Amino acid sequence: MAIRDLTSERLFVEDDLAAARLLELAPPQAHYLTAVLRLRPGAQLLVFNGRDGEWVATLAETKKRGATLTVERQTRPQEVSPDIDYLFAPLKRSRLDYMVQKATEMGAARLRPVITERTVAERVNSDRMRANVIEAAEQCGVLQVPVVEPPAKLDDVLDDWDEARRLIYCDEHEQLSDPIETLGKLAPGPLAVLIGPEGGFSLRERNRLVGKPYVVPLSLGPRIMRADTAAVAALALVGAVLGDWRRR
Amino acid sequence: MAIRDLTSERLFVEDDLAAARLLELAPPQAHYLTAVLRLRPGAQLLVFNGRDGEWVATLAETKKRGATLTVERQTRPQEVSPDIDYLFAPLKRSRLDYMVQKATEMGAARLRPVITERTVAERVNSDRMRANVIEAAEQCGVLQVPVVEPPAKLDDVLDDWDEARRLIYCDEHEQLSDPIETLGKLAPGPLAVLIGPEGGFSLRERNRLVGKPYVVPLSLGPRIMRADTAAVAALALVGAVLGDWRRR
Repeated sequence: MAIRDLTSERLFVEDDLAAARLLELAPPQAHYLTAVLRLRPGAQLLVFNGRDGEWVATLAETKKRGATLTVERQTRPQEVSPDIDYLFAPLKRSRLDYMVQKATEMGAARLRPVITERTVAERVNSDRMRANVIEAAEQCGVLQVPVVEPPAKLDDVLDDWDEARRLIYCDEHEQLSDPIETLGKLAPGPLAVLIGPEGGFSLRERNRLVGKPYVVPLSLGPRIMRADTAAVAALALVGAVLGDWRRR
Repeated sequence: MAIRDLTSERLFVEDDLAAARLLELAPPQAHYLTAVLRLRPGAQLLVFNGRDGEWVATLAETKKRGATLTVERQTRPQEVSPDIDYLFAPLKRSRLDYMVQKATEMGAARLRPVITERTVAERVNSDRMRANVIEAAEQCGVLQVPVVEPPAKLDDVLDDWDEARRLIYCDEHEQLSDPIETLGKLAPGPLAVLIGPEGGFSLRERNRLVGKPYVVPLSLGPRIMRADTAAVAALALVGAVLGDWRRR
């Protein structure tokens, strides 16, 4: 792990990346580079697209509305994060922004908002979530940009569940038990982490979850956590025990 | 672990708590109860002081400036969190607020701001940190309210270090190694977790840290994290492996 380094500017682009390619930036990105970062032609930055790794690019030309980057050389090959879905009950706006940024930093492969009986968020803004994912990926050097799935009802999600994917369910009613031991028993394979809404799951939802063979209740200690804190804590334990936090 | 429940109001008070005690609230707290929460005489809430556990109190009387609570019965005995200091390089305002709230949720016993060579924060506002600690404790039902220590230079902190306290140092230059294994080797005893500034420790600071017998370098996986994310991740692993996250 590295603490975020503020010195290297990273830009997410949609285009394919390869040496000597020219990238035509849309006005908002061009404005960010030239007006916000005050970069001038010849300045270098890092670019990534979630597919082709990370590359150094040079600002070749700035126009009134737009800019051109020249892709130079690859700095990091594409990384593939562990196959971990992150399912969460959307929170109110600022906390949702934060939670999405955190899940991206923690290397979740997919962000899946689930609507539960006690979900209090107003409508889920997928564009805003996508923007937060990209911002976090740019700032934290994440090369695999998580996919933002459309919101779905928890019941529908469970109806369509692929039983090969273990669903690690952070259960506030779970007796205090050793989370390392719980996770250590799981076989390798696709995973998902589910964090409930503030206020918790309904009894009906909870009974349905614990009745599923693929559901693994996980205890996150004796204290109360905000949902966004529980997200980072759960993804840290999963990463450390089952994910890519150990030497490969 | 429980996800925060929004239904129960908790209030931190300075006074000792015992059955039938009357608590005279200062105007700001009285205003919060009567004007913000719109509580009326007879309304009940939870109160705690960090020493005497959690109690139900009844709003007995509201005056023009002030209010009186009657302490009824204890709902939870005082809990004692594990002896974990959380040392951190202060961040800019909003992220510092967030980090302090998170460390409180995660059960740190003491918050110790350390000034490093690359610390970018403006002066550290201890009153603001204390207010964030209390807010997080109120919202998350934390009964042991962490102590906020005054800021100190990292070098001075290390000069005065009690070698009986292991200092778990989240080292961005540490090779990827199994954090569960690293923590699992530590004997029980007082702990501290140190998270560096964004931009990292200087080489001199790092060399000084890794040279200390009580310092335990910890790897937090292959990705870059913001400092406040690393804080929650590190405290989660420490809580799970060495702290009170297992059945006692």
